[in-house]
Amino acid sequence: MPDALPPALGTIEPILPALRDLLGERLSTGQAVREQHGRGEGVPDLFPPDAVAFPGSNEEVAAIARLCHAQRVPIVPFGTGTSLEGHVTALRGGLCVDLTRMDRVLGVSPEALDCRVQAGVTRRRLNAELRSHGMFFPIDPGADASIGGMAATRASGTAAVRYGTMRENVLGLTVVTPDGRIVRTGSRARKSSTGLDLTRLYVGSEGTLGLITEVQLRLQGLPEAVSAAVCQFPDIRAALGATVAVLQAGIPVARIEFVNALQMRMCIRYSKLDEMAELPTLFLEFQGGPAAVAEQVEAVGAVCEEMGGSGFLWANRPEERSRLWKARHDNYYATLHYLPGKSVMGTDACVPVSALAECILETEADVAATGLLAPLVGHVGDGNFHLGIIFDPTDPEQRARADGLARRTGERAIRMGGTCSGEHGIGMHKLDLAAEEHGEALALMWAVKNALDPLGIMNPGKLLKPLPNQA
Amino acid sequence: MPDALPPALGTIEPILPALRDLLGERLSTGQAVREQHGRGEGVPDLFPPDAVAFPGSNEEVAAIARLCHAQRVPIVPFGTGTSLEGHVTALRGGLCVDLTRMDRVLGVSPEALDCRVQAGVTRRRLNAELRSHGMFFPIDPGADASIGGMAATRASGTAAVRYGTMRENVLGLTVVTPDGRIVRTGSRARKSSTGLDLTRLYVGSEGTLGLITEVQLRLQGLPEAVSAAVCQFPDIRAALGATVAVLQAGIPVARIEFVNALQMRMCIRYSKLDEMAELPTLFLEFQGGPAAVAEQVEAVGAVCEEMGGSGFLWANRPEERSRLWKARHDNYYATLHYLPGKSVMGTDACVPVSALAECILETEADVAATGLLAPLVGHVGDGNFHLGIIFDPTDPEQRARADGLARRTGERAIRMGGTCSGEHGIGMHKLDLAAEEHGEALALMWAVKNALDPLGIMNPGKLLKPLPNQA
Repeated sequence: MPDALPPALGTIEPILPALRDLLGERLSTGQAVREQHGRGEGVPDLFPPDAVAFPGSNEEVAAIARLCHAQRVPIVPFGTGTSLEGHVTALRGGLCVDLTRMDRVLGVSPEALDCRVQAGVTRRRLNAELRSHGMFFPIDPGADASIGGMAATRASGTAAVRYGTMRENVLGLTVVTPDGRIVRTGSRARKSSTGLDLTRLYVGSEGTLGLITEVQLRLQGLPEAVSAAVCQFPDIRAALGATVAVLQAGIPVARIEFVNALQMRMCIRYSKLDEMAELPTLFLEFQGGPAAVAEQVEAVGAVCEEMGGSGFLWANRPEERSRLWKARHDNYYATLHYLPGKSVMGTDACVPVSALAECILETEADVAATGLLAPLVGHVGDGNFHLGIIFDPTDPEQRARADGLARRTGERAIRMGGTCSGEHGIGMHKLDLAAEEHGEALALMWAVKNALDPLGIMNPGKLLKPLPNQA
Repeated sequence: MPDALPPALGTIEPILPALRDLLGERLSTGQAVREQHGRGEGVPDLFPPDAVAFPGSNEEVAAIARLCHAQRVPIVPFGTGTSLEGHVTALRGGLCVDLTRMDRVLGVSPEALDCRVQAGVTRRRLNAELRSHGMFFPIDPGADASIGGMAATRASGTAAVRYGTMRENVLGLTVVTPDGRIVRTGSRARKSSTGLDLTRLYVGSEGTLGLITEVQLRLQGLPEAVSAAVCQFPDIRAALGATVAVLQAGIPVARIEFVNALQMRMCIRYSKLDEMAELPTLFLEFQGGPAAVAEQVEAVGAVCEEMGGSGFLWANRPEERSRLWKARHDNYYATLHYLPGKSVMGTDACVPVSALAECILETEADVAATGLLAPLVGHVGDGNFHLGIIFDPTDPEQRARADGLARRTGERAIRMGGTCSGEHGIGMHKLDLAAEEHGEALALMWAVKNALDPLGIMNPGKLLKPLPNQA
């Protein structure tokens, strides 16, 4: 897109020879590779980079950054490309830095319950490696994302209610700055009062401040006992009332996931859950010592019953648990399968749990008014829920209705004291909503961005809407 | 200290009339008030501000900031003044902004398990107010600090092993910038992937970026059952081996505190714990459902016994628990009482728990080599421990020996992958150690500092050591 290139950013041609000298075969300008790196998931339009680099070390990433910096060439960091918000599109062209070859687990300590990994290690591979040490890493976004990408987008998933998000589980980072310095942030200490919290600043920065190349993670010991359960409710208020009661009682559930009636219809059909009804449903998991798990199961069962819950399904054996959680995780595919040929647009509102029932009920009324189908699932222990808005990608009018519904859902969350994105991030899609949410804080974010990336080469066009005086 | 005033900072005289117009009686230039605000705890020398302001609202704080900003007058935010690291000293004079009159609890939500408070509310007052709502706020530094000060220093305490520190428990802030803008960061959502994490940037910034005036806090429901225990060990390795085993097993202890033999001698004498021996000791607390607590007690008991622990003392009744925890919390007074007339210098190393035994043993050998007495206590579930180095404040040679021991303890923690400050912060005392710990990251912190406080008026001389080119 040379037309849209602002004068402040440079073109890649002058540095291509030096990049080739540095990377050899690990630099690609082929169309197929560039297009593979130009979209991410759920992004209709393609914005390919001018070239893709596959570095193998911190030093190579730093050398790449220095070359790009000298010529003001945009840099777009890339992990597995599973972001739903267009984080990896090369809106201004430039160089995509694909970190998937940096995929070594650098160290695992069962005694300290931590590990250090290169950015390209994926969460499933990490967990496979951790199992033999009796540990696991609890953050589970739907995709098998890279740890670097998960740090960059502040990812979470179904277990955040118990274990937190990437914000709480990253102890430190190695970051390459836009001008090619290799900087370590944080330490292996669990807590620290030592200076400005650069680790948390880079976590969630979506590649706009620098490239994350290594991540120090906090880990958990494998629980002695695990139990899962499903409970169905007469209406949404009952299911969410049970959620609030469980949280208020301080019952340390490992997962508490909500699925609405429409999504249940799709799940029952897709995952053959014939024993279940098309009703608002909670999927729960409990972890801990056997007595603690039994006590939690009993306490949550009593709460659910009091709220009118029924159709309890307890799953203690691993294969029963897997079947239930696979059905929950397959929601997206169940939705696609329900109406073949349609696209699904996700939303990501997150509100205080006290406002969750009201927020979801208003949102469902809004869905009904648009005439679109939009099943709803939620990490309700965190106040986070997703609509899967189904629309015909070839019909601009439907697309516009879907866009409007998504925007209003984000605005509603902000109005209720929450956020337009609980875990998917801003990317290129939610700049306006995020600006509305931040208010005056947006100017402070730009001050920080400009201080750490003064040339504006890091992932331009993402995360932060330009201020009026920058437009 | 007008001699030390860098040319870039201004004097307060030109803005005193405007400050008086704004604040009336709530501006003080009296010597007694200035001296009360010139030291904090554990700081031998006095650095009083030129005046002290007692604002009552965000708008007044913003107006104060605008006046100081126009004249480049240093601003030192002040809560309860209980920092041990000289955070509140006015090293360059200027205006102390005492926020203790901003002491309203602005909102409490038992359904969302959160609250919003003005910066001057203290943790004990907050907990007194929360109890009737069936909730508590778990962060407990020794002092009855203000919530704003705890946020500014990233405080923690004895319950961080279970509930995290201020880093994990602050959802959002109201901050007044050095040029007088009132900015809200974060939201009431439990998690968010929306933009740069300004909340975590201000938490722990020690007043160097702006003034924290309001804090949104995450809360916990009061546990159904609580039990405490004390167990004594033949040596340090055994006590810390038990700690690591408890953490690895994923037993969710609410507190696990270590007290060494010397500190036990002082405690036994001061708190009349005659049933205990002068041995390395763990103080433990368990919270949760009754069955979960019973299971934890049994599991931890078995671990401790396996490690050679003995002399178990279980405390289930509130008054027994209070007696044990009071003894633990009175360590500092027990130390002062042991050798009247001496001073105590605290250290704050925090290392990965895998390195904790080695770090503490090396430190104890170092203590022995100095010939000083220095009892040791630790929040060992986080890898954090404090030496209380006893020295004669009138003897410069002893003071120098104490300083050297403190410095080496911080350096040892850094060398072992940890941090020189787990929870006390840097203030004016640990600039060199922190610079050693940060390495290249210090330049990035300065870039952020200069972006958000371009005139350098916010709490000058704290947190960040000047870079070589700034000296």
